[in-house]
Amino acid sequence: MKNFEYHNPTRLVFGKGQIAKLAGLVPAGAKIMVTFGGGSVRRNGVYDQVAQALEGRDYVEFWGIEPNPSVETVREAVALGREYGVDFLLAVGGGSVLDGTKLIASALAMPGIDPWEIVLSGQARAAIPYASVMTLPATGSEMNNGAVISRRETREKYPFYSRYPEFSILDPEVTYTLPPEQIANGVTDVYAHILEQYMTVPGQSRLMDRWAEGMLMELVELAPKIRANPHDYDVMADFMLVAAMALNDMIRMGVTEDWSTHMIGHELTALHGIAHGASLAIVFPATLRVLRDQKRGKLLQYAERVWHITEGGEDARIDEAIARTEAFFRSLGQKTRLAEAGIGDETIEVIAERFNKAGVAYGEGRNVTGDVARQILQAAK
Amino acid sequence: MKNFEYHNPTRLVFGKGQIAKLAGLVPAGAKIMVTFGGGSVRRNGVYDQVAQALEGRDYVEFWGIEPNPSVETVREAVALGREYGVDFLLAVGGGSVLDGTKLIASALAMPGIDPWEIVLSGQARAAIPYASVMTLPATGSEMNNGAVISRRETREKYPFYSRYPEFSILDPEVTYTLPPEQIANGVTDVYAHILEQYMTVPGQSRLMDRWAEGMLMELVELAPKIRANPHDYDVMADFMLVAAMALNDMIRMGVTEDWSTHMIGHELTALHGIAHGASLAIVFPATLRVLRDQKRGKLLQYAERVWHITEGGEDARIDEAIARTEAFFRSLGQKTRLAEAGIGDETIEVIAERFNKAGVAYGEGRNVTGDVARQILQAAK
Repeated sequence: MKNFEYHNPTRLVFGKGQIAKLAGLVPAGAKIMVTFGGGSVRRNGVYDQVAQALEGRDYVEFWGIEPNPSVETVREAVALGREYGVDFLLAVGGGSVLDGTKLIASALAMPGIDPWEIVLSGQARAAIPYASVMTLPATGSEMNNGAVISRRETREKYPFYSRYPEFSILDPEVTYTLPPEQIANGVTDVYAHILEQYMTVPGQSRLMDRWAEGMLMELVELAPKIRANPHDYDVMADFMLVAAMALNDMIRMGVTEDWSTHMIGHELTALHGIAHGASLAIVFPATLRVLRDQKRGKLLQYAERVWHITEGGEDARIDEAIARTEAFFRSLGQKTRLAEAGIGDETIEVIAERFNKAGVAYGEGRNVTGDVARQILQAAK
Repeated sequence: MKNFEYHNPTRLVFGKGQIAKLAGLVPAGAKIMVTFGGGSVRRNGVYDQVAQALEGRDYVEFWGIEPNPSVETVREAVALGREYGVDFLLAVGGGSVLDGTKLIASALAMPGIDPWEIVLSGQARAAIPYASVMTLPATGSEMNNGAVISRRETREKYPFYSRYPEFSILDPEVTYTLPPEQIANGVTDVYAHILEQYMTVPGQSRLMDRWAEGMLMELVELAPKIRANPHDYDVMADFMLVAAMALNDMIRMGVTEDWSTHMIGHELTALHGIAHGASLAIVFPATLRVLRDQKRGKLLQYAERVWHITEGGEDARIDEAIARTEAFFRSLGQKTRLAEAGIGDETIEVIAERFNKAGVAYGEGRNVTGDVARQILQAAK
């Protein structure tokens, strides 16, 4: 096991009717900016619940944080926040609203620095406190200090790190009205988050392995139940809880990670605008095919424990595990090949070039350079 | 799933050589009291590492917090802490040292109130900040706000709750010199912690079930490896991590709990001085035998997922799962019957009487009264 520190101070407030607790959770006397996306919270009742809980409080609203939140939008929000002297942010929406809000929080605490500079720095050195009412189980942003921001003008998309949310309120009932494709992308994203922390080196931590495997098995079990009845409270509660736990540092204690698939997926989103979850469904099976030798031990463990594949030789079991992973994504309605998404060699070369130019090397072996990214994308054709 | 809040702000600092980080973790300018047990930290090198990390800092030492820490000892420590104007505590040792320190922290923040009153209140309303260097994987005290305190003069033992540690440093290398019986009691205690949060109602949270089952399986896998080589870093690191995660709120989100076994075990310790882990090995199999009907669904799931028992009728599978649980404790070297520990009917009646007099009722069904405790203890004969 590797040495590590774990410190996640976010308060998770989970369950039916919990949005009303906002009244007690937002600090007294705060000058609040509430941030929203495109308006779905007006239709699902969340906006009304938030407005009721904040009645009498000093707040301003900022609307329009888009999917794959852009630095351009963040700049507008920062200007509004400055104008009102905001000292607390409340994101109400999905992971994109919260990710955008994380950058707003940092920019408000770092005057004179353009938000894109903060993103490029990788780690913000300050941020005002913020919290969330999370409406979409997917990104895990509700319990971590990371965010992914896009820059429209250059079609770039990068992660950065900031402080943790003060609290996040998760009411599974608000997921009932989510469109099926958002749920499918959410399930894909959560499955990928777990795999990125798991599918590396075997034997680093039995506990982390068991926890990750339990979550992967659970997602496989939950997915058809969600499709069958997205108004089943216990099913949606389990999904919402797994989403939060998948990326809150709890399953990466003492283990190596490999975020290659996410980093390649971000490029597909930045260049073609395809949804984040959808990008991962295309890249992940290909990553496993290309890196099967270096991930061999863990792929065998994954085959046995998550997919219960015990027959056949080692290579056959690995083939089967990768095939089942791709089939799982397809069962969600995802495309799993670049050609299906209309993406060809030109994009592959742009991404390989970007990775090579930036000199990056992802993966547990720090070997996923532009050339390996090209192999992965070729294997995803 | 039940509504819940999760908020665990403790920083976990885990791995080889991490004790040196104390220098940066203890607040600058703090007036520190370092609390110890009986002196094993002098023999395993931990004392020297702590002294080196705190060189030049303003601290006083308090020695002698005993196993099953007593309020009598805590009172002495509080007097010393007051005399020195202490505002930060550092517990160095096992769960008992840390539990005692939690009560010292509360008593120092609540002048004029006797520490036993704080214990009896169940929840301290204040505490000064404290932290730990944990040397024994067992109680989970390193990442939670609970503590169990004994009162020697009345032979009583009760839990109470306070604030969370600011940080806990866990270096698996310091466990190499633990006596085998302390490790056996630690494994038993951790297994029991998980079961108390798991062995209740099925279907409340798939995630919590998977995580608990993963930990139980892991302990079963680890125990013989620990016995074979208690100097295997990765084995001890996994054990130390499971111990911390078993009682830090992570596996009780949204689920019902049943702490009957612990509460009955505390009585055996208070009345007969037997080690906490040893008391649980005697009580838990009996609890499962007596409450098998109300725990039926979960026992069947436990049989299948933890012990991989799939043959035979339902009752046979439950019998087998309970037998395997008892056999697991015996494989650690534990006694699992009251008679083996020289405890007879007189004690059973005292405990039943105490429960009835206090009007308590433990368990997920709030039905473990004195009469049910008597049945459990009779089933443990």
